[in-house]
Amino acid sequence: MISRDLNPIDFLKVEDLEKIHKASLTVLEKNGVEFHSPEAREVLQKGGAKVEGEKVFFPPELVMEQVSHAPSEFTLHARNPENSVTVGGNHTVHAPGYGSPYVMDYENDKRRSAKYDDYVAFTKLCGNSKNCDVVGGVVVEPNDVPDNLRHAKMLQAAVKHTDKCLMGSAMGEKKAQESLEMAGIVFGGVDKVRENPALVSLINTNSPLQFDPRMLEALMVYARNNQPVLVSALAMTGTTSAVTLAGSLVQQCAEVLSGIVLAQLINPGTPVVFGSASSIVDLRTGNLAIGSPESVKMFSVIAQLARYYDLPSRGGGSLTDALIPDAQSGYESMMVVLSSIMSGINFMLHSMGLLENYMTMSYEKFVIDDEILGMAGNYPGTFPVDDDTLAVDAILQVGSGGNYIAQEHTFRHMKEMRVPIISARENYAGATDFSDTAKRAHEYCKTVIEEHQDPPLDEKIEEELNKYIENIKE
Amino acid sequence: MISRDLNPIDFLKVEDLEKIHKASLTVLEKNGVEFHSPEAREVLQKGGAKVEGEKVFFPPELVMEQVSHAPSEFTLHARNPENSVTVGGNHTVHAPGYGSPYVMDYENDKRRSAKYDDYVAFTKLCGNSKNCDVVGGVVVEPNDVPDNLRHAKMLQAAVKHTDKCLMGSAMGEKKAQESLEMAGIVFGGVDKVRENPALVSLINTNSPLQFDPRMLEALMVYARNNQPVLVSALAMTGTTSAVTLAGSLVQQCAEVLSGIVLAQLINPGTPVVFGSASSIVDLRTGNLAIGSPESVKMFSVIAQLARYYDLPSRGGGSLTDALIPDAQSGYESMMVVLSSIMSGINFMLHSMGLLENYMTMSYEKFVIDDEILGMAGNYPGTFPVDDDTLAVDAILQVGSGGNYIAQEHTFRHMKEMRVPIISARENYAGATDFSDTAKRAHEYCKTVIEEHQDPPLDEKIEEELNKYIENIKE
Repeated sequence: MISRDLNPIDFLKVEDLEKIHKASLTVLEKNGVEFHSPEAREVLQKGGAKVEGEKVFFPPELVMEQVSHAPSEFTLHARNPENSVTVGGNHTVHAPGYGSPYVMDYENDKRRSAKYDDYVAFTKLCGNSKNCDVVGGVVVEPNDVPDNLRHAKMLQAAVKHTDKCLMGSAMGEKKAQESLEMAGIVFGGVDKVRENPALVSLINTNSPLQFDPRMLEALMVYARNNQPVLVSALAMTGTTSAVTLAGSLVQQCAEVLSGIVLAQLINPGTPVVFGSASSIVDLRTGNLAIGSPESVKMFSVIAQLARYYDLPSRGGGSLTDALIPDAQSGYESMMVVLSSIMSGINFMLHSMGLLENYMTMSYEKFVIDDEILGMAGNYPGTFPVDDDTLAVDAILQVGSGGNYIAQEHTFRHMKEMRVPIISARENYAGATDFSDTAKRAHEYCKTVIEEHQDPPLDEKIEEELNKYIENIKE
Repeated sequence: MISRDLNPIDFLKVEDLEKIHKASLTVLEKNGVEFHSPEAREVLQKGGAKVEGEKVFFPPELVMEQVSHAPSEFTLHARNPENSVTVGGNHTVHAPGYGSPYVMDYENDKRRSAKYDDYVAFTKLCGNSKNCDVVGGVVVEPNDVPDNLRHAKMLQAAVKHTDKCLMGSAMGEKKAQESLEMAGIVFGGVDKVRENPALVSLINTNSPLQFDPRMLEALMVYARNNQPVLVSALAMTGTTSAVTLAGSLVQQCAEVLSGIVLAQLINPGTPVVFGSASSIVDLRTGNLAIGSPESVKMFSVIAQLARYYDLPSRGGGSLTDALIPDAQSGYESMMVVLSSIMSGINFMLHSMGLLENYMTMSYEKFVIDDEILGMAGNYPGTFPVDDDTLAVDAILQVGSGGNYIAQEHTFRHMKEMRVPIISARENYAGATDFSDTAKRAHEYCKTVIEEHQDPPLDEKIEEELNKYIENIKE
């Protein structure tokens, strides 16, 4: 978890932000949102929305009233209390890549289908990263595990190999319920989990202006049980949303608010996060351009809109359109991470490992992103300015033309600088290692995975989880 | 020139900023600064400073009085008026790398001594870059040109191959005077140059708390002739300045203010820029770590201090400690560029081409940095929020589950997105080019240099410049 000393960037003028807000209320009232779940529609209708067929129309007062019930920040609990995090305020919480079906294999620079072994290896990297706060999501898609067990095996690996915060499955009611019950095993009962939210889940809208049944069912399970949900739009400008950034934001805002209304009607006070993974589309190629400055502007406005609604925000990530862990992957990911942190994004999914927009996870990129998160997270921490650090005495003592290397003041403060994990700081003449960042990252991650040690876990919990998974039906 | 719509980041609280300011006044009064030029000391003494030997002590009132004479922003004139830039306000002006003795040769990934041919090639890249505003400085050190002609041959190349803003030599009185006279040839007389400043120069302090004779002589030539000077400290924490960021900033501030006082005493209203190229030192290796978040914090405070004094600021750049144009070079340079732009740095020397801190220029990195500048410069430009861009009509027309691709609204706005120069936006399955960013950059810069065409230049000016250079003495 990164904490900013600086105020967040307010990207738009308040009057422009309010235009987006008002336009989204108009869209919610006049077009509404299709909720492809009878149960969700029933909840919304009872709550005061107008339902026609699959479509739900939202009066503005209903939206604002329900949104006001959501907390402005909340604690997400880890089984090791030291790893619990605050979602909201001046904090940014990091979770790794989510949902990539492919893995980039550094040995031959080719992408291939991701497997459970990859999932476990990435989970170990997450456990060892100082910057990774949340595990157990679809870090990569374990394509070799039967579909009915994937969510359970992922959560099991996260609990076994780390003691960090957990994500739950968003793939329908059954899997959400099973995620919750497994969390119950870890935390001493589902009641405990309800009291101390411990499972955050990603609920995506289906742009434009729809929610599919699986996501809605999962949202409802988690809301009933007081578990936080990241309600997020992945709008693609010019295809699944308007081509303009303003218009795309109007639609995202409408979609996300409608999901939050549902969560609040089910359980007022459900922790929710106002989210986006939206991006412009490069209309030359038809591909997402998630490493573009325009996409980043949308994240900045998402953070600002969330503050306007007094909600935590989700956006950003170590995003890139590069296919390999090269310079482009570095500059794009740094741009997205740094601007998102500075804009006040509170929850950053996709913080580590991505290549090829959201499609591929790379071991090397994971390590590169760990470095990027460490650097970008260090920047907005100001430094102490007091008589000792101002160093006037030392300056007067050293005087003109002197050297500070042997000063007592230097010895006392020299360990305050951040030490990079893989970045080179040798000069050319003295360098012993001319390998590129990807190669350094490769060596680093191999060592981390090999030397990984699981944190302590009660044997009974481990057994119970095993038994629970054995009993999961088709 | 990049223009921000956003307010700059104020990195420190005002009270902390003022502590740095006050401590620097204390240093100026109690330790003073060594000015290794009798003429400079005479000017300062006459102006009200106390001189003892080489050392000059500054009463606080003298400093504040003189600093107040400097303009808060100024125009730097190019021979093509369209390329003139404003230094100050919400603008950031970019100049390429400065002073590197080495060039990285991509063909064999080895660094070698820079030559005049390299200087010319980089100047052509500068001319073709949309982001580069200033040429004619020591883009690379042309080691094969005799020392007495280097500054003149560099300026000549800049005038011949581009029509952008120019830098002058800071290497003593003779070379500064010759730079000025050459600018006079280009702009129709030295008087014209005095009226419309056209030559910006880099005056470095010699930390801690000294100025060397060459820099002082050059500063005095330019101040007498109303040419802008970037007065800059390159303090290295723990060696040539205090190890703490606050203490290092105190010293930098004192050094730079003292140089500005000299310029204002010579010619009240001389355009000056409050500058820094300072960095932390990685005390494990003893090397600069210019791509570190701590170094970036100092640039952010430099920009803030400059605003406090109502002066333009200089800092940042596409800085990196990487030895090759790899992911590290990308993420470090993006961090420095983006945070410096967001912090309100007005003049960014070293904006393009650097590797190995300030030691090596790379053709490929130049192109990579051009992309970084384009992205980072695009981000702080907000977007229009009005009835058309909010797109409520289009949203209501497309409705839930529709597609925007064929909408008139999409066609009308689709060309508003930035098009990258080298970044990949293909997906893996459809990709035809899997080469890394450095390779793409290599192909790009080869083409640009080969296809470069000089802008029109009056033959008489070209002849006069040739003649002038032929007559330069040892």
